Amino acid sequence: MVVTVAGIGLIGGSMALALKDKGFATELIGVDLNEEHTKKALELGLVDKIATLEEAVAQSDLIILAVPVSAVLQLLPKVLNLVNDKQVIMDVGSTKLGVVELAAAHPRKGRVVATHPMWGTEFSGPEAAVRNAFAGKATVICNKEQCDADAFELVEQLYHLLGMRLLYMNAEDHDVHVAYISHISHITSFALANTVLEKEKEEDAIFELASGGFESTVRLAKSNAQMWVPIFKQNRDNVLDVLNEHIAQLRKFKACLEKENYEYLQELIENANKIRKVLNRP
Amino acid sequence: MVVTVAGIGLIGGSMALALKDKGFATELIGVDLNEEHTKKALELGLVDKIATLEEAVAQSDLIILAVPVSAVLQLLPKVLNLVNDKQVIMDVGSTKLGVVELAAAHPRKGRVVATHPMWGTEFSGPEAAVRNAFAGKATVICNKEQCDADAFELVEQLYHLLGMRLLYMNAEDHDVHVAYISHISHITSFALANTVLEKEKEEDAIFELASGGFESTVRLAKSNAQMWVPIFKQNRDNVLDVLNEHIAQLRKFKACLEKENYEYLQELIENANKIRKVLNRP
Repeated sequence: MVVTVAGIGLIGGSMALALKDKGFATELIGVDLNEEHTKKALELGLVDKIATLEEAVAQSDLIILAVPVSAVLQLLPKVLNLVNDKQVIMDVGSTKLGVVELAAAHPRKGRVVATHPMWGTEFSGPEAAVRNAFAGKATVICNKEQCDADAFELVEQLYHLLGMRLLYMNAEDHDVHVAYISHISHITSFALANTVLEKEKEEDAIFELASGGFESTVRLAKSNAQMWVPIFKQNRDNVLDVLNEHIAQLRKFKACLEKENYEYLQELIENANKIRKVLNRP
Repeated sequence: MVVTVAGIGLIGGSMALALKDKGFATELIGVDLNEEHTKKALELGLVDKIATLEEAVAQSDLIILAVPVSAVLQLLPKVLNLVNDKQVIMDVGSTKLGVVELAAAHPRKGRVVATHPMWGTEFSGPEAAVRNAFAGKATVICNKEQCDADAFELVEQLYHLLGMRLLYMNAEDHDVHVAYISHISHITSFALANTVLEKEKEEDAIFELASGGFESTVRLAKSNAQMWVPIFKQNRDNVLDVLNEHIAQLRKFKACLEKENYEYLQELIENANKIRKVLNRP
């Protein structure tokens, strides 16, 4: 099967590698506006050739949109206008409501499968692509009732082949969930980095001391703005809800310290410890 | 050399293992009020025998205080009253000003070396002890001018043997630094866990989706309240300063979203990305 990957960065590049390794894609065509990325993607063997969007779609059975979520909304109508009723379009962005709504308004809507494989790192670009990246992780397929049966089945088959656990939900629920388990983690990490960097102006020695705990909470702060600004923009209402809740939770810690209420501080920490049961789930 | 470890948990247990492995301790005596811990420590071979504080100090060349920082302040005067001018007391707690001030008021103050090895995990108790835990990490020695030369040299030798990088600073500076690079990470992680757990009451599916990014930012939320409440209490003023700064940083993200100022949001993220230069330092 000929597969186009539009956007050959962290996710698109890793997806390309996986589809080639598993024999799902016999030919892989890369589409990317960034010339350095296309050059690098060829060099790294992520794709077999580079083409324009139009050329690539004309030759492909499956078109995967792996661009930032703002670009997905620009690309999707173009690709929908180019495909026939055998070709399949799959997106892999971190927000889903915009995609399914946009697709729903198009006569070829059944060809679009809106998905979100729950894997990523804090790095970006084709060099960030990782072999066997998705195995064992969850992937979400949204509003499957909107998809043509054959399109949906192809995408299911693809994710099964990658070794992913499939979850089905509507796009609205998906966007709420990811605000809680992904988007807010990034905001806290960005804000934590800024908190420390603000202080660094005075105190260089801090960095001598940074240990494992700091690295793990601040790791996501290395994440790419081109990817994340559009995610926060598209999921603005949910992210604001969670951010308000998070600030309220932080204020409880602040109040405990201000009032020297260490019994309540202990309760807050013991409540937080319940996250163990979540992280230790199979 | 006979070494007593008071508090045979994560740090004390790991320290005991390391000192035995490196041949620094020929005999290791464990002191712990928690009987389950002493039983477990013997079972795991972390220490050679268990004794009361008085018995243990009487037989030891070096006494390591690895109890929660509140207990350090209770134990230290007792141990100071028990030691002669050849024995050395070393503490390994996460806050240092209280320790050096307390020691300074005692005639045997020169026997105390206040240190903070910058290693830990989110687990606790003797079962959490890790072999070869400290190698390659930094350790801080505070107010070394307060120590007798022989006591200081013994502790330096110990940390060199563990393969740690030694840093020297005064206790006041130390406590500011750790508020930024360790204590605030724990608070953000606890608060993030509570944010998500608050929501879980409504939405169980969130947990199906938790991926690597979430796990890494929330990992520290598993940390033990018995250890962390005393740390926050002793470092209250510094932690409050940092927490205020952190909430202010989060409010900037909130304001960007509320006002849909995505240019500034991008700036905030790009500024946070500068943390790369810190994390990538050798």
